[in-house]
Amino acid sequence: MNTINFHNGARSFRQLSAYLEARIRRGDWQAHEKLPSVRQLAQESGLHRLTILKAYQQLKECGLVYVRHKSGYYAAPPAVSARLDHVPAPVVFQGNMAALHQLPARYQFSQALIDPNLLPNHYFAEYMKEVFDLYPKLLGTYAQVQGDPELRELLAGYFRRSAQLHLDADELLITSGAQQAIHLIADIWIRPGDPVLVESPTYANAIDVFRQKGARLLSIGIQDGCYDLQEIEQMMQRYRPRLFYLNPTFHNPTGICIPVEQRKQLVDLAAQYECLLIEDDTCSDIYFDGKPPAPVFAYDTEGYTIHIRSFSKYISPGLRIACIAARQPWMSQLLAAKSLADGGSPLLNQKLFLHYFRSDRLHRHLDKLRIALRIRMEIMQQELDEAGWQYEQPQGGLSLWVRVPDHLSVPLLLRECLARQISLLPGSLFDIRERYEQHIRLSFSFASETQIREGMHELMIISRDINVQQRFE
Amino acid sequence: MNTINFHNGARSFRQLSAYLEARIRRGDWQAHEKLPSVRQLAQESGLHRLTILKAYQQLKECGLVYVRHKSGYYAAPPAVSARLDHVPAPVVFQGNMAALHQLPARYQFSQALIDPNLLPNHYFAEYMKEVFDLYPKLLGTYAQVQGDPELRELLAGYFRRSAQLHLDADELLITSGAQQAIHLIADIWIRPGDPVLVESPTYANAIDVFRQKGARLLSIGIQDGCYDLQEIEQMMQRYRPRLFYLNPTFHNPTGICIPVEQRKQLVDLAAQYECLLIEDDTCSDIYFDGKPPAPVFAYDTEGYTIHIRSFSKYISPGLRIACIAARQPWMSQLLAAKSLADGGSPLLNQKLFLHYFRSDRLHRHLDKLRIALRIRMEIMQQELDEAGWQYEQPQGGLSLWVRVPDHLSVPLLLRECLARQISLLPGSLFDIRERYEQHIRLSFSFASETQIREGMHELMIISRDINVQQRFE
Repeated sequence: MNTINFHNGARSFRQLSAYLEARIRRGDWQAHEKLPSVRQLAQESGLHRLTILKAYQQLKECGLVYVRHKSGYYAAPPAVSARLDHVPAPVVFQGNMAALHQLPARYQFSQALIDPNLLPNHYFAEYMKEVFDLYPKLLGTYAQVQGDPELRELLAGYFRRSAQLHLDADELLITSGAQQAIHLIADIWIRPGDPVLVESPTYANAIDVFRQKGARLLSIGIQDGCYDLQEIEQMMQRYRPRLFYLNPTFHNPTGICIPVEQRKQLVDLAAQYECLLIEDDTCSDIYFDGKPPAPVFAYDTEGYTIHIRSFSKYISPGLRIACIAARQPWMSQLLAAKSLADGGSPLLNQKLFLHYFRSDRLHRHLDKLRIALRIRMEIMQQELDEAGWQYEQPQGGLSLWVRVPDHLSVPLLLRECLARQISLLPGSLFDIRERYEQHIRLSFSFASETQIREGMHELMIISRDINVQQRFE
Repeated sequence: MNTINFHNGARSFRQLSAYLEARIRRGDWQAHEKLPSVRQLAQESGLHRLTILKAYQQLKECGLVYVRHKSGYYAAPPAVSARLDHVPAPVVFQGNMAALHQLPARYQFSQALIDPNLLPNHYFAEYMKEVFDLYPKLLGTYAQVQGDPELRELLAGYFRRSAQLHLDADELLITSGAQQAIHLIADIWIRPGDPVLVESPTYANAIDVFRQKGARLLSIGIQDGCYDLQEIEQMMQRYRPRLFYLNPTFHNPTGICIPVEQRKQLVDLAAQYECLLIEDDTCSDIYFDGKPPAPVFAYDTEGYTIHIRSFSKYISPGLRIACIAARQPWMSQLLAAKSLADGGSPLLNQKLFLHYFRSDRLHRHLDKLRIALRIRMEIMQQELDEAGWQYEQPQGGLSLWVRVPDHLSVPLLLRECLARQISLLPGSLFDIRERYEQHIRLSFSFASETQIREGMHELMIISRDINVQQRFE
């Protein structure tokens, strides 16, 4: 199956290289699998060996193949091509994060999910009955592609009152979680090779989605809770990215919050360089030091911001309800993409969410949730402090961004922790170049207080063992 | 905003043409919007006017721009580029079908949906309670990306017993409707320019999805309820398509059913030419002349068939539950794509569906539903017979594929019908080249018996009026 067929009629090295690239990207050769030799290809194709060689060279320059001395060309693994910023990774990226989440864990510090015991599950059975009484034929019909109008009206009102976002129901699209929102956006606006700005560190799943679409990822650092706006401007000027994906409010994984002044300057830059700001906002209700500033979207008068707002995490992950706020012409394009992607999110889930969202229980729930999460965070911080580990002080969110001591190998720590069913995420997942090798992300939202204390104790014992081991080696 | 910037450093007409193509595809110019003149571009870029002209010519050949005499180059609308088979349409395709479905209708003959009165809605409130009692924290957790294991086990058993599909729960992926299944498949396996086979006529939404991914669509005719297998083999040999999207059981829109012998031969062709068969099966329980043969998937020993099975239509459109059956390595790729697309379908919907699906109500429901739909179909056929209109006799499904008399203009009929809130679909939507200009699709599944009779009466009056009008013009 993995021979080359020349039905495609490649006649030049560029054509051949494009053809081989397409096949490598679709996974016709496994990572580290040997490609046909130059001699073999020349025989099969009738092309000159020099032409074949040039095609292979081009693929090498793109990081899609690598050479073993005196052996030949091999398909590069995703990690290799990922390290070269300008090279889109293979089409299907097997996210390590998803793989990690599937492992069994006694101490769950890897998923930034909220402990189901802290969620208002028991009310939903009640709402369910209400919803069926109100809409007996609810399950017999499709929802509007854009989402239930009643829910969109409610959310638009909520945004106007609570987040200074002035928008109409027509400027909202209901999606199946924030993950789908990111995917729709990537589907519309990223073609292979398109430059896309992301933060460093950034949300690992977003990296995967953008890579799947073939984006050329470029990253922007965050220092002391701020962007370097000069760096952003230079990047926009030089690469003309179509999108900048950002998470300015209780940033994942660091928990920082970008100040108002920078939010204002950012929308000016976006308009000047015609770069869409994709503002991912999943945690703005989980604050520890007071409410965050209004979203970037609120300061944008030119319409270059697209705002993703998820409620799943702290209301009901099981319903999978999020929304996108966008002005025209973006909303029309989003609607067309949503229509093709799944024809609209299920109506039942939207109506259930609506009934909870408009009750006054939401506010009480959030007040209690913030306290419960703060306690869990402080327990985790105590354990880290005792061990002398450094971490970013988060202003909100569900995780701690921890720097492990210099001598400690994170891959080793991860391996040993997973072996004892303590789950955590290595920092390298959060960066397009796999930097942050000495960082880990520990989520404090899922495990109970006791579990956090026990799990962190065990984690510290594991790290001391590794330390001793490393010294004797 | 729509000037050309030359930061991309295009130096040759090919580079310029590739650059302009990318911008046209991402919608930088609206359909029928004028592009910059040759002179203007030459001045801005410093390139020779001949180079610019050559670039425009190449775009014209691809159907991406068109020329108005003495005026210049204009961005081509999707319809124009769609007519040229080998040209991928713009990235975001505004499906006419979706637009049509949004219009108000007194007589709803356009959507192949089932009348909610015929669906088992009232049982679901009951199941809902059961489900919440059984899984009190259902809404607090995410489902597995692949779908609820309990549901996949149940469906695998059902497939083994009822459809001769021998598969494990691991070979099933739960999706949010068949639409998402098609979209995931296209997302993984279609790169811009990839040849994809479809039937003619075929499902309009599938055309839209494949076009969005930039597929080069090729179509296969259906004659007397059969494929021309020789034609299929020639197409596979010549174009080496990666996918063949087919709907062999109660085909939409014709209602025909491909015979067993052809199903067997098809899987051989697929294996020989390494072409994935994407078998869309949404209506196999809605038969009028006895059960259909086993799906193509059942005859495939080589693993080249991917089977999409939807239950939404005749159980509960509101839940949005469908599944994909696929062997390895396809299932791994599908899982990775689903993980990026939305992280998994909502668990609540899967559990509700599970509870209905395993009750013995399903069989009784289907028996009654088939009778009710048959009656509605026969009423619609009577009306057509009286008017002397021809139609394909469907063996199953929800619609009639009707040939309107030669003298009658379908666009005119559509316009007049929509004006009087009678909805129907023009045949041209079901073909990649917009053929079937004398066909319409009339669905008999949503309107009640009375509505069908009344609506068809009105439709015939409208068509006679058009006839008279046309004669006097």
